[in-house]
Amino acid sequence: MNLSLNQWTTRRWTVAEAVDGCVRHGLEAIGLWRQEVAAQGLAESVKLVRAAGLRVSSLCRGGFLTAGGLPGEQGRRAFAAALDDNRRAVDEAAELGAACLVMVVGGLPGVVPGEPLSGPVSRDVAGARERVAEGLAELAPYAGERGVKLALEPLHPMYCADRAVLSTLEQAVDLCLPYPVEQVGVVVDTFHVWWDPRLFEQIARAGERIASYQVCDFLHPLPADVLLGRGMMGDGVIDFAPITRAVLEAGYTGDVEVEIFNADVWAADPDEVLSTMKARYAEVVLRS
Amino acid sequence: MNLSLNQWTTRRWTVAEAVDGCVRHGLEAIGLWRQEVAAQGLAESVKLVRAAGLRVSSLCRGGFLTAGGLPGEQGRRAFAAALDDNRRAVDEAAELGAACLVMVVGGLPGVVPGEPLSGPVSRDVAGARERVAEGLAELAPYAGERGVKLALEPLHPMYCADRAVLSTLEQAVDLCLPYPVEQVGVVVDTFHVWWDPRLFEQIARAGERIASYQVCDFLHPLPADVLLGRGMMGDGVIDFAPITRAVLEAGYTGDVEVEIFNADVWAADPDEVLSTMKARYAEVVLRS
Repeated sequence: MNLSLNQWTTRRWTVAEAVDGCVRHGLEAIGLWRQEVAAQGLAESVKLVRAAGLRVSSLCRGGFLTAGGLPGEQGRRAFAAALDDNRRAVDEAAELGAACLVMVVGGLPGVVPGEPLSGPVSRDVAGARERVAEGLAELAPYAGERGVKLALEPLHPMYCADRAVLSTLEQAVDLCLPYPVEQVGVVVDTFHVWWDPRLFEQIARAGERIASYQVCDFLHPLPADVLLGRGMMGDGVIDFAPITRAVLEAGYTGDVEVEIFNADVWAADPDEVLSTMKARYAEVVLRS
Repeated sequence: MNLSLNQWTTRRWTVAEAVDGCVRHGLEAIGLWRQEVAAQGLAESVKLVRAAGLRVSSLCRGGFLTAGGLPGEQGRRAFAAALDDNRRAVDEAAELGAACLVMVVGGLPGVVPGEPLSGPVSRDVAGARERVAEGLAELAPYAGERGVKLALEPLHPMYCADRAVLSTLEQAVDLCLPYPVEQVGVVVDTFHVWWDPRLFEQIARAGERIASYQVCDFLHPLPADVLLGRGMMGDGVIDFAPITRAVLEAGYTGDVEVEIFNADVWAADPDEVLSTMKARYAEVVLRS
């Protein structure tokens, strides 16, 4: 397993700066975000990672496929727009040679992250999960033709309303099994799944379907914005070693991305963040 | 099904005031909290609910059985103290004639709700779940002898670290099945379980094991203190009707408790809260 920097961990760095940082710290892989790639320019981003000899362990992110659950024309348009955007994301992932496109599938139709409820909202969580399956049926062949693997990410159930109605690894594995393994896989992100009583059984079941292993800690207490509850490994409550071991035993040979959304980490010197990240990876994530 | 006021919803009311409020609003049942019963006096509380002709739909709460996972003498003492406290809670539930004693089983050993991590902490979530099973083995016969049913409450996974390592209804049902149905059951609380892809299958599986049905909404966005993310039914993202229907179809005939932890609800006039609660119960919870 090789350590990879998900660039959101060093959020103030551009793609160019993050690529330089990886090289400076001896990392061989980087996880990129679409908006940062767009800001740098897609062609320029491709050039930078190639020149640095970095693997692109993932592109974040596609998904948000559930808005089609809104009634009538509004729903149809939202679904079509989401598919278009996801096809562009697949194209970008292909250009970058990313190991996978991370899919955050979307929450309840009409629920906007961080915003109070307003306008039409659907509370039909089962229906929203069906919309995800429908979207996947459209996108998986498109991704397959371009050599891109879609990686379905189950998110912690506290994000079920606004970000991902995929709440367990089991659901994600269920969804990907109808497709070829090179088209659809799953993300195992410690923050999202550590609490799950079925975690180890589902990691084993996922096997070669594991397209990405992401690590960060679950902080306690959670901060006021729960999106920023992701901490440096060792700063929270997760026991990483058994999860890492299970992912390895399932056959995963890819990179391990550190993806931290955290106001203190973002405020810190990114070079210090990388140094800490490398040390904690060895001490906490790989410790057996 | 009959509506019950969980007294935490009208937190500023004493037991006497909450009993009066229930009578004034035509409610036949009340859910009590141990600290409020202690403040009123146990014998006086018994007298008040009897005189008012109210059912006690639950006593909140026993549990916090996981601290025994701390090493050595500290762990042994904490486990013994937790058992003692739970036996007292059983005795109080027996005196009150409560339909069940709600069990919030406890989080990771050494993790304190609302407090930063400090001192010894165990990150062994599987071990903590074993401690819960051990505690239950001690307490179930004790409760059975006194005619009290322990009701295991799975809490939303965002409380796994600090309040309950029971995170799914499936886990709770697994834990209660070895015991007689009159000794151990489960709580279905909409706030905690609405997101669970296995919810409906597990409600059906729970059947006569459902000892309590609690309702409140899941707010979006969550407030800064996630403990207070519980809202009045209709103010959040939960589709109550299918859950209520499933609980009924599973054979539940008990009371439906409204339990809301919410700064705005606590600040409001409790009589207005009860009026709104009755209206929303009819419109949102029972709507078919």
